[in-house]
This record gives sequence, structure tokens and C-alpha cells, in this order.
Amino acid sequence: MNVLITSGGTTEKIDRVRGITNHATGKLGSIMAKIFLDQGNRVTLVTTARAIKPSDHENLTIYLVSDVASLKETLEPLVKTHDVIIHSMAVSDYSPIYMTDFETARNSSDLALFLNQENTEAKIASSSDYQVLFLKKTPKLISHIKLWNPDILLVGFKLLVDVPKDELFSVARASLKRNQADYILANDLTEIDAKSHHAYLLTEDSAFEANSKEEIAQLIYQKVVTHD
Amino acid sequence: MNVLITSGGTTEKIDRVRGITNHATGKLGSIMAKIFLDQGNRVTLVTTARAIKPSDHENLTIYLVSDVASLKETLEPLVKTHDVIIHSMAVSDYSPIYMTDFETARNSSDLALFLNQENTEAKIASSSDYQVLFLKKTPKLISHIKLWNPDILLVGFKLLVDVPKDELFSVARASLKRNQADYILANDLTEIDAKSHHAYLLTEDSAFEANSKEEIAQLIYQKVVTHD
Repeated sequence: MNVLITSGGTTEKIDRVRGITNHATGKLGSIMAKIFLDQGNRVTLVTTARAIKPSDHENLTIYLVSDVASLKETLEPLVKTHDVIIHSMAVSDYSPIYMTDFETARNSSDLALFLNQENTEAKIASSSDYQVLFLKKTPKLISHIKLWNPDILLVGFKLLVDVPKDELFSVARASLKRNQADYILANDLTEIDAKSHHAYLLTEDSAFEANSKEEIAQLIYQKVVTHD
Repeated sequence: MNVLITSGGTTEKIDRVRGITNHATGKLGSIMAKIFLDQGNRVTLVTTARAIKPSDHENLTIYLVSDVASLKETLEPLVKTHDVIIHSMAVSDYSPIYMTDFETARNSSDLALFLNQENTEAKIASSSDYQVLFLKKTPKLISHIKLWNPDILLVGFKLLVDVPKDELFSVARASLKRNQADYILANDLTEIDAKSHHAYLLTEDSAFEANSKEEIAQLIYQKVVTHD
């Protein structure tokens, strides 16, 4: 089986020095890669330079990406040639457009003017007391996956923060439906720490619970290999 | 000698999932720590969970920080008990205050109203096409160091991006003077890659050149130990 795993988190640049990122480490993706490799599968791991990676293996290929644009470009051809994708990467939902000092924004007749501007300096100056950063939504890559390859088995991820279980399930299942995912791994940041990682692997009408990254990885492995 | 080294880069949180960070890896700080340890000094390294760190050593103490506030709190007492500080950490210059959707900002009578607001949600919702993030300047920690301890030897760092050498020198020397630093390591991001790292160690009237992280670390070590 050809298994495509995304892991770690993208960073969207503000300028050449600063960026917006998230706390994803790539640890779960690395554990999943190892399990699939140990069972004789070929694994393609799409991740970032910073992320935790599995040891070298003859059946492992790693692609490094940085932001949503490079992830999209890398992912499209790979999705078309794999049987399964486990899309655990934390993908940035907003990308910086333009940063300006606060007074310039405050005195502008219409903030929409800034949405078409671009910072030309390599490192935005840091003299004013306040600054304003305009951001735009990034494309939702998970929604493209089944369009790129309707036959691929898709395991998506949904991370919320401090919500009731009912809400976690309904948001995750809405994502499952919207993106034609086969499974969504639903988890809450308040239930993740260095030792434990509580999560549910959801289909439209079933839920499987796990309490650590190892259990999550085993659960996903079992569901993927037994999927008809 | 008691040597305090800061390395890596701070991250300022937007919410519990997202943050603004920079590309610093902690590699140079790790090399410097090793050189001072090898020569029998005690080293205190203030860095981040993500940064590259030197191997364990009986004379090495590591403190982990995340953002500018935690760095300041950690640094103040340490500065008072060390002989030397090599402040190579990339410290965030702006910290998020409030994020809102673009139309809310656009329709507001005065953007200053947002400077006193606070996001209460743990993960800011990502439904609108554009968002606006308000940021405020962080305190310049390097300016506090000689106030906390006038006797400490201070090596500061200045990173610019794609500027002429004249400008790099004048900006770095302005920082030297303003912060009463003994040395400033001046470097340009366009002259740093995986293999090489071009930099100048500056005083008010002298400049010493280095071409790799190892050379920079050796140069700083020599100047620190021979400083009268």
C-alpha cells in the first residue's frame, strides 16, 4: 500500500524574518509513518524542516514544505499516486498580506486599500508602537483531496480548543461530510500534553477512542488496513 | 567565568494554537555554549523548547522560555549573577493584542478601540475571508541588561536583511551605543545559509569578520576571555 502522511505545521511568512506558525511538532505523523513502514508499506511523508521525523527507511520518502502554497504544490501530484492519505499536518488558515504601522491604518479612508498592498522591505521596520497586520484565508487543501483522487482513502484531522465533546463531534463530522473524508481524527488541545493525547477517530456513525499518540497511530493503522 | 547565553527565538501567541515566530534555530548558541563549557566555564543557556541544544554537561544549566514576557522574567535575576551575557536570541519585536474579522475592523469608527480588546476564545474562528491582527511593540530587553547589572559584559546581536555593509555597521553600532553593549555581532540574513554564516563582531571602532557559525563562536569566545 502507498501511504501519504502529512505532519508538522506550515508557517506563513510575514517577512523574511517573521512568520505565523502553530505548535505542531510532527510527532504523531512520525509514529504513524513508522507503523506503516514496519508493516511493509511504502510511506511518503510531507512535513517541514523543523518537524520530528522517523528514522531513514528504504520505503520512506520525505518531502519538505514550508507554507500552504508549497504544501499544495507538493501534495497534488502525490495524492494522485497514493492509496491512502493521513492528513495530520496543521495547515495555516490565514496568510499575511500586508503589515503597516497603526497610525497609517487608523488614518486611512478605507482599510480595503491595504488588502492589495505588499510589503517591499525584506524585514518590516519595527519603530512604531503598534502595527496592523492584514491576513487572508488560505485555500482549504483538505477539500481538494477527493477532487484530485476520488479513490484515495482520506483520514482528516480536526483540532479544537476547550469545547464540549458534542461540539467536537459535530464540527468534526461536518468536516468529514464537507470534504468527503472517510475518517476524521477529532481532538481537543486541552486534552493533549507531553504524555497523553486523547482523541476520537470518527466516521459518520461511529467513534473510536484513543488516549495516546501511539494508540491514535495504531487505531488509524487498523482502520486503514481493514477498510473495504 | 559564569556565562549566560540566550539562543533560539521567542514565539508570541495569537491564540492557543497560532503564534508569531521567527526562523532562529539555536544552533549558534549551542556551539557557543559548547566552546565555553570545554574551556571550564559555567554556562547558563536560556532558550526555547524547539531550539537546538548542546549535550548535557555538569556545568550547563538550561532554562526554557516561550515569549518575551517569560524571557524577561527569567533573564533579570540571571543577568545579576553572571559575568557575561551573549544575547543571541531572536526576540519578537511585536506581540499580538487582538484579532478580528476584516469587516468589523473596516466598519469601526476608530481602530484605537481594538487596542484595548482581548480575544476570549481559545482558538480564534476562521470563517471570514480576511482578518486583521493588531500588535504592540514588545519591551527591548537588551536595553535593560546594563541597568540590571552594569558590570556584566554584554555581547548583543543585530540581524538585518539585504542591506549594504555601511548600513549594517551603522545600525549595529547605534544599538551598541544605545544599549551600552561591549560588542555587537552584526549579520545579514542573505549571508546566512546551512553551510556559511558571514558576520562582523563590532565595537565602536573595530570590526572582526567571521564566515561560519564555528568562526563566530570562536571569535566571541576570544574577545570575551581577553576583555579587560
